[in-house]
Order: sequence, then C-alpha cells, then structure tokens
Amino acid sequence: MKIFTIDANDKNCAARTGTLLLPHGPVSTPAFMPVGTAGTVKAVDHDQLHQMGYRLILANTYHLFLRPGMDTIGSFGGLHTFSSWNHNILTDSGGYQIFSLAPFRKITDEGASFRSHLDGSRHLLTPERTVDIQVTIGSDIQMVLDVCTGPEIDHRAALEALTTTTTWAARARRRWEEQQEESGYAGALFGIVQGNFFPDLRTQAVQRTEELDFPGLALGGLSVGEPFSTYCDILAHTAPQLPREKPRYVMGIGTPEYILAAIEQGIDMFDCVFPTRAARTGTLFTTDGRINFKSARYARTMDSPDRQIDSFGGRQYSLGYLRHLTKSNEILGCMLAAQHNLRFMKWLVDQSARAIREGTFLSFKKDFLERYTEGTKAAREASSP
Amino acid sequence: MKIFTIDANDKNCAARTGTLLLPHGPVSTPAFMPVGTAGTVKAVDHDQLHQMGYRLILANTYHLFLRPGMDTIGSFGGLHTFSSWNHNILTDSGGYQIFSLAPFRKITDEGASFRSHLDGSRHLLTPERTVDIQVTIGSDIQMVLDVCTGPEIDHRAALEALTTTTTWAARARRRWEEQQEESGYAGALFGIVQGNFFPDLRTQAVQRTEELDFPGLALGGLSVGEPFSTYCDILAHTAPQLPREKPRYVMGIGTPEYILAAIEQGIDMFDCVFPTRAARTGTLFTTDGRINFKSARYARTMDSPDRQIDSFGGRQYSLGYLRHLTKSNEILGCMLAAQHNLRFMKWLVDQSARAIREGTFLSFKKDFLERYTEGTKAAREASSP
Ligand SMILES: [Zn+2]
Ligand SMILES: [Zn+2]
Repeated sequence: MKIFTIDANDKNCAARTGTLLLPHGPVSTPAFMPVGTAGTVKAVDHDQLHQMGYRLILANTYHLFLRPGMDTIGSFGGLHTFSSWNHNILTDSGGYQIFSLAPFRKITDEGASFRSHLDGSRHLLTPERTVDIQVTIGSDIQMVLDVCTGPEIDHRAALEALTTTTTWAARARRRWEEQQEESGYAGALFGIVQGNFFPDLRTQAVQRTEELDFPGLALGGLSVGEPFSTYCDILAHTAPQLPREKPRYVMGIGTPEYILAAIEQGIDMFDCVFPTRAARTGTLFTTDGRINFKSARYARTMDSPDRQIDSFGGRQYSLGYLRHLTKSNEILGCMLAAQHNLRFMKWLVDQSARAIREGTFLSFKKDFLERYTEGTKAAREASSP
Repeated sequence: MKIFTIDANDKNCAARTGTLLLPHGPVSTPAFMPVGTAGTVKAVDHDQLHQMGYRLILANTYHLFLRPGMDTIGSFGGLHTFSSWNHNILTDSGGYQIFSLAPFRKITDEGASFRSHLDGSRHLLTPERTVDIQVTIGSDIQMVLDVCTGPEIDHRAALEALTTTTTWAARARRRWEEQQEESGYAGALFGIVQGNFFPDLRTQAVQRTEELDFPGLALGGLSVGEPFSTYCDILAHTAPQLPREKPRYVMGIGTPEYILAAIEQGIDMFDCVFPTRAARTGTLFTTDGRINFKSARYARTMDSPDRQIDSFGGRQYSLGYLRHLTKSNEILGCMLAAQHNLRFMKWLVDQSARAIREGTFLSFKKDFLERYTEGTKAAREASSP
C-alpha cells in the first residue's frame, strides 16, 4: 500500500513536501494534526477546522474505546459518521494513554491489560484487537499497539519494550491484512519506532519495524520530558534511517521549536494537544513569541493576537477582549484562543512548505525562531512582576 | 424619538410584526434577544449569531461594569468595538442583577448601593450614572435603573418600589436627553413598568411611565417564580394598556410557552439566558418538546435534534454525538446545544411573524404548543426510571 508522494525536496536539508493519499481525500505535508481526543477537537467545530485547512485530525482510541464505546461508534458505522467529520482521521493505538492515564496497567506478551481511568473497569488490548477497534472507528490511518517508556528507563528495559513493540507490530500487521481482505478496510497502518533515547536501539527499531513494510512509520517515545537537545539528537540519528519514500510521523510534538526541528529532518506529520490545551490556559503562539494573554498588560490591547496571521478567519478580535473572556471564564475565550493556535500551526506548516519548495527552509526556520524566541523572552519579562 | 414601525397586525389577536430602527441597523420583531452577559453569548461566536439571523443581543450592565470595567470598555470606544459585534446591543440597567446577585444592596432615593459578587467592592448606581454607563457601553437600547421585587412582596412594598422606579425613570430620562445633546448619543432609552403582581399597581405604573414618553416600554418583574397563569393574567391586564405605536418588551422570558403568550398580547421583544443556560445542562428545545439529550435513550440516535429546524446551519450532528460530547464534558457539546437552542428560538419568532402576517397566529400557537407539550411529557416519561 503506497499512500504518499513527495512533491518537493529542499536542496539544503532533508525537509520535503508531499501528499498523503487517504480514503477521505489528499492531505498536504508537512501536516500538523489537531488532536480530537474524544472525537472532537476541543472548543473548535468541524466547519472551522475545515475552513482553517485541516483535512486530517487525530482521535484517541483509548478514549473512544472507553466512551462512548465501540458498540455506539459501530452502530453509527464509524467515527466519521458519528462525529460528522468527513475528512481524514488518524487514531493512535491507545498505548500511550494506557501508559500515561490508566491507574493500573500490565504488559504481557499477549497485550496490555489495564483499568479505565473513568470507572476502574478492566480491559485487555491486544495488537489484533487494537487493529479491529480502529477498523470499527474507520481510521484513515491507524497505529500499531506499542509499549511506551519514559526517559528514565535503562537499556535493558528499553530493549525489552522495543522487542515487545516489534513482536506486536508483526501481529498487528497480519490482522490489518486480514481486515483488508475480510472487511475491505481501506485505511493504512503505521509502524512505530521505539527504542527510547538509546541510538543503537533506535537503529534496531527502524530495521525491525521496516522489515514489516508498513505504509508509514512513526517515531514514538519522543517529547516525553527529555531536554530539547536530546530530542534533536535522537531525531538526527533516527530520521535519516527511515525509508525516504514513506510518510514519517513524530508523535506528540506541538511547539514550533520541535516541529521545525522535525521538518528539517524530513518528518512529514506531527500531532499534539498542546496548541489547544495551551489555549485554554491563556497561552497563544504568535510569530512574536509565546504570550500569556491573561496578563494585565493586554487589558486594553486593541490588536488581534498576530498581525501576520488571520487568527479568526477574517474576523478581528482584540487581545483585550480575549483577556476579558478568559478572566470571565467565558467559553468563547477558549474557542477563540484554540482557533488562533490552530491557525498559527497551519500557518507554520504552510510557510514551511513554501520555504521547502523555494529551497529556503533553513533560513525560514532561523528567521522565524529568532523572532519567536526573542518575543517569548520579552513577553515573559514584561509579564513577570 | 421614534424607533419602531408596525408592519403587520394579526386580525384575530393583538400580535403584530414590526421593525426596530436602531443605530446598528433594523431588527424585525417579534425579536428574541440572546443574552451575552459579559459581552459574549455563551459558547456561540458572533459569526454564528449573525448567520442565525440575530441582529440584537442583550448585555448586562452590572457584569460589564464590574468586569472588565468602564475604563476598559471606554478605551475601546464601547462594547461594539471591544467585542467585535457590529450589530445592535440592548443593555439592562443592572437593577435586576443587583437584586439577584449582589451579596448586599441598599435602595435609597439616591440610587442602589451594593457590593460586587466578584470581590465585595462597594458601588453606588444612580439613575443618572446608569445612563452614563450605558452611553459608554454604546448601547443601542438602554434601560432605566429600576427596583426589582420578588413575587412574595406586599402591596405597600410594591407601591414603594414602583414609586422609586418611576422617580428614577424621570431622572434617567433627563440624563439621557443631556447625553443626546452633549455627546450625540443615538441610542434609545426604555422605561420599565413594574408593579409586581398587583393589577392596580401595573395600571398605575403604565400611566406614570408613559407620562415620561420613552421610545419603548418594558414589563419588568415577570417570570420571577410566579405560576404561569399569574404571568398570563398580569400580561393580559397590562399589555393592552401599553401604547400601540411603541415597542413593548417583556424582560427575562425564554421558554416557548412564555414567549408565545407574550406575542399574543402584542409584545415585540424578549430576552432570557435560559436557552443558552439550558443547553449547557443538556436541555434542548424542539418542536417535539423539551428533551434532555444526556438521557441514555439518545446514545445511538442518528437523527439531529429537530427535523423541522436547521439546528447547526446546514451541518448535521446527531443526538448520539451530542450526548457523547456532553457526557465527556466536551466544549463542543455546549457549543452545539447552544446553537440549536438559539436557532430554535429564532425559528419560533420567525414562524410567529409568518403566522401573524397570515392572520393565523392563534392557530399556529395552539398547534405548536399541543405538539410541544405532548412531546415534553413523553420525553420526560421515557427518560424517568
Ligand atoms: Zn469539510
Ligand atoms: Zn454580522
């Protein structure tokens, strides 16, 4: 299954633009995927997402599996119909949520057994069942069940997790092939390269995962609390080993610094809750840095958050009004801030794509980050007492 | 100042359609006004309000006065610019909020002194100051400061409140005229007819308020906990005494029963937080009655909330998805439910206007309420254990 074409390569680095060819239409890369945990990107409606230019969002298998459950989603014929989102959906496998949310979990050869963080009920997810669930969801791209590990783990434990992950990947791949034959499932399955922060294990993970020849590959276990330089090192070590012709996805990254570093290394896809979560706590991404719009200094600011970005689809809302809404706990504050941050992310990947086509990605990245970093520092200083 | 034209009268009752001619454009009546307490209608953005057909929303002077405060709103040149809502705004005077929210209040001849429910700070609102505040807000229609009373009050106390209200009304009217001359203020000022549930006091209130010749008149102190029949009695007693050529506004009503009863008596305007507040707790208004969409019976319902109403502006969302969103505490649940309820209210007043023009308002009202009441009863029975 080939689902990706490369459209342009930057001549000065590994960055590229491309197109994902998915059941619910083409998606240009580099692509940031907004996270719709429970089948909704928080505080943003589907028309707005579409208007912003998004054609691929992420949903969490773990959350949907627990609520509303597969019976309900199945009875609607999948998440697209259930949620009225007619474009593409990528689902993670639930591995990361089991690792980070479930109050109890146990990894065996068979799969991951865990307790629900909602009601304490017991569940077992096997690699095969996870594929079946994502087939029921109707995911355009689904992910294999993997074993996630934190940055504190040792080489032996990381190797063990990696071995389980690749064994599970082979089982998931077989089940995915059966589903294609039996149910005519048309979505793609991505493998996940783990290996923690050990370069030799990352190399081994690429080889063992690539042997299974997935339509796309993800790097998992990054942006889990490690220093930025560690992230960059592992990225620089691993990304060049990934097959060029396949889409490459770094899971869970959502700040400009992380995303631009990934694009430079030839990564095509990324997702993160951070832009929408940060919006709810008062943080906006702008070309002049990250700002906290709850600060009193914005109370009378008539400017919209960013002069370079159409934050609200043609309408103007001032930072002063945004601050007022958030100070008053008004839902519109969340709605507008989330919209701005998602439009910012779209702007960032679109500008990256433009620069790649012109062969100027490295200077775009440098200029952007210079201004962004200085602005973030200045905003932080101005807001501190 | 004449701000109202009558466009059609129903030949079988007092109901009429008309047009309010306001600084930010014309508004057809009967008009339901969504409530934007803090300068935002909860969970709905301005483009959606506009798309739904709303051209007049209500904002609360009390809330805006306390937060963000008049300095901030003044520095933006008023609430229209501050909130980026370019259509009409009606503001109440704060009397009702002082009565219902402030932890401490004292009514004197001078005005209403009270403590803020936010930070306990002390404030004094006089009739004159209330006009000035609403001029700073830039209200297209502003209301006089009045003394609100509950349904438990006796005749003597009700008369006293009424007397204070009409004395204050005369002072407000003078200040409003000064503002028109001094600052070129173009908004209208409405008088408020109080008198509690005593017909003789209501009659007296109409006469004393009408002597001041406001551009429009409101009935205050209704829908404060009295039985529906008491509301209807006072309405039937008072509405016919109001001058026909002026717009008539019943404050604080927001259910189909109350609104249709008011329209029948020739009322042109109404407002209520209920449609948006109810949305957040799972209640939807439909032509088949009021339903609680959190009920398990809707978990797999693929229908949108109401076949007769375009609930979401051309898009379909199922009741099953709506239920899931609300059970998962997702903001989109509030957004969609509020949108549906506001579109329902707009549908209700638009259908009423159509019926009035055809001289069939009474039969429209009867048919609508029959189906609505039966549906509400059936939904309640189906959802109870
Ligand atoms: Zn679309
Ligand atoms: Zn508009």
